[in-house]
Amino acid sequence: MHEQQRARAAQLLDEDGVDCALFSDIYSVRWLTGLNLPAPALLWFDRGRFTLLADEGFAPAASFGDNPDCAHASYINYTIQQPIDAPGRLAEVFGNLIASSGTPAGRVGIEEKSLLLSLWQTLHNTLPGYQPVSLEGRLLPLRAVKTQEELARIREGFRLVTIGHDAGRKAVRKGQREIDVWTEVQTAVEREAGMWMQMGNDCLVGHRPANIGAAPLDYEIYADDSLILDLSVVVDGYWTDSCATYFANQPTALQTELHKFVEEALAFAVSLIRPGVVAQDVDRQVRRYMADGGYEVYPHHSGHGIGLTSHEAPRIVPYSQEVLEEGHVVMLEPGIYVPGVTGVRLEDAFLVTADGAEQLSHHDKSLA
Amino acid sequence: MHEQQRARAAQLLDEDGVDCALFSDIYSVRWLTGLNLPAPALLWFDRGRFTLLADEGFAPAASFGDNPDCAHASYINYTIQQPIDAPGRLAEVFGNLIASSGTPAGRVGIEEKSLLLSLWQTLHNTLPGYQPVSLEGRLLPLRAVKTQEELARIREGFRLVTIGHDAGRKAVRKGQREIDVWTEVQTAVEREAGMWMQMGNDCLVGHRPANIGAAPLDYEIYADDSLILDLSVVVDGYWTDSCATYFANQPTALQTELHKFVEEALAFAVSLIRPGVVAQDVDRQVRRYMADGGYEVYPHHSGHGIGLTSHEAPRIVPYSQEVLEEGHVVMLEPGIYVPGVTGVRLEDAFLVTADGAEQLSHHDKSLA
Repeated sequence: MHEQQRARAAQLLDEDGVDCALFSDIYSVRWLTGLNLPAPALLWFDRGRFTLLADEGFAPAASFGDNPDCAHASYINYTIQQPIDAPGRLAEVFGNLIASSGTPAGRVGIEEKSLLLSLWQTLHNTLPGYQPVSLEGRLLPLRAVKTQEELARIREGFRLVTIGHDAGRKAVRKGQREIDVWTEVQTAVEREAGMWMQMGNDCLVGHRPANIGAAPLDYEIYADDSLILDLSVVVDGYWTDSCATYFANQPTALQTELHKFVEEALAFAVSLIRPGVVAQDVDRQVRRYMADGGYEVYPHHSGHGIGLTSHEAPRIVPYSQEVLEEGHVVMLEPGIYVPGVTGVRLEDAFLVTADGAEQLSHHDKSLA
Repeated sequence: MHEQQRARAAQLLDEDGVDCALFSDIYSVRWLTGLNLPAPALLWFDRGRFTLLADEGFAPAASFGDNPDCAHASYINYTIQQPIDAPGRLAEVFGNLIASSGTPAGRVGIEEKSLLLSLWQTLHNTLPGYQPVSLEGRLLPLRAVKTQEELARIREGFRLVTIGHDAGRKAVRKGQREIDVWTEVQTAVEREAGMWMQMGNDCLVGHRPANIGAAPLDYEIYADDSLILDLSVVVDGYWTDSCATYFANQPTALQTELHKFVEEALAFAVSLIRPGVVAQDVDRQVRRYMADGGYEVYPHHSGHGIGLTSHEAPRIVPYSQEVLEEGHVVMLEPGIYVPGVTGVRLEDAFLVTADGAEQLSHHDKSLA
């Protein structure tokens, strides 16, 4: 699993003249292994060889050593024989690994914004004289380009997203509460998946004073209310995202107007997606489309990449000079919000292809 | 909120001769503030004053500065104007805080197993010459003794636990799957709470080959099956825990026998709980009770404390020399497991009182 990811990372390290690297960001470790590992876990790269250090309670980690040029070591997390101390035991296993590998004290890549001081001390004490090289954020552009293995997980996630939205649409009725809608969505997804699923993001009625995004509470759905269901389902660590807006009754004239315009804005945004486009240009054009239509421009992103986290490269925001590439997966999500009255947001996911975009999300976003 | 916790910590720091301390363990920060803060967040103690550094998106943090001798500063996490970089922005805010406070470079307490290298570098660069003093794990014994504020959250959690168990007991029927039972439990709890709730732990049928603990999957409940529901509901960051065993049909003779014995073992364990008892002695006596009854002794803990995490001091395990104190909250959870056939575990929570124990969990654990 994830051989391509390791090959890309090894090439980056080679270009940087780095022989060894300690990946401590849990998302780096997941991306380089393909395993949805619990934290803390480390991946140590030493002259071409990747060694995973993981909680022995996470059974799938053991198979990592079966990959070419890969090895696996574990630390004891839960035990009734000693105090629970994952960082301490991980540091011990890591120290032993370096000490026994004859690792030279050269340039060592580190991710300093996720590396625990105690683990850094182990590196420092076991490999005195090494020269730290920051790898912070260096994998993000690589992570943005998805492989077929990753897309398979993401596609399965969108299959579940559709099931969740179908349940949500049915559950939106006057007198139900946001949390009632959410538990229907959650139940439908988890029954289909046959397991617990990490899910997000927003489930809120239009009559909330701040009605852009929020977790479901006990706000009741009014007779002419709208409800934004912004739904992510995470499959094996890979996020999806999606949004539709549902109505308790026949949509009002205002709701119909907003929904129609947001549909058009989303279609306009999609028409801009292809390799070579700069993210900030997409953002600027979609915002201008909203303003030209006479609507207040949403305060959030126009869209964003997804992968091991819910918001990652490329971000479709005003400052972003990221260039869309084939293999990127981007969300597009225009919305119009009338505080305390109603709000409409629609969101789809797209895989950037050689000549445009393939829609990955297939939930029903229709008006009624 | 949590003034008592800060007073206890300040006394500990005073005894250690520490003027300043950086709390980076998210559980330390939550315990010292009473806020269920998202990571990363820091609490900086400087000569009697506590300053919270938190994500500006977490609105309740702002009120922390209203407490005596407390202040609040925030960092920007989500924004469309700059890259998302919580650790980097937190380091910047932290560096500015120290630089502007005239903090002396004396003994500074740190929690090295949760401190990110980048934040430590900020401390190091802004306060050169300071002398680090490890506070790792020092708050754990203090955290074990609950205040009335904490008990109120824990009691609310146990009220929800009872609602979850009632739903679980009803849902256990031949042909339903573990995940179907779980979604009923989860829905009942979240509808009652009116919001998303963090929940755990085990929901598994007796006929699983490894039938002690696991998240629910699509294993079907057989005609003569048992199901262990080990349920935690987390309220404002505070964990509960509980276990009952349910049956698809009239319990078999074996199930009835095991259930009766586990009930007795739990009652025996409870009879041992009072201030001054050593945790390993409780553990040893309960294990001996199981063995004397002719049953294989469970491989897990006999019990454990709860609080901001699901397993904390005092651990009722073979090595633990922790002494029970008034104000501790401990779980007791004997079980008997026949792999692939059936398993029974019962678990209750107890507050250690001046002369014994008060039961905090009130779910129905009866046989039928």
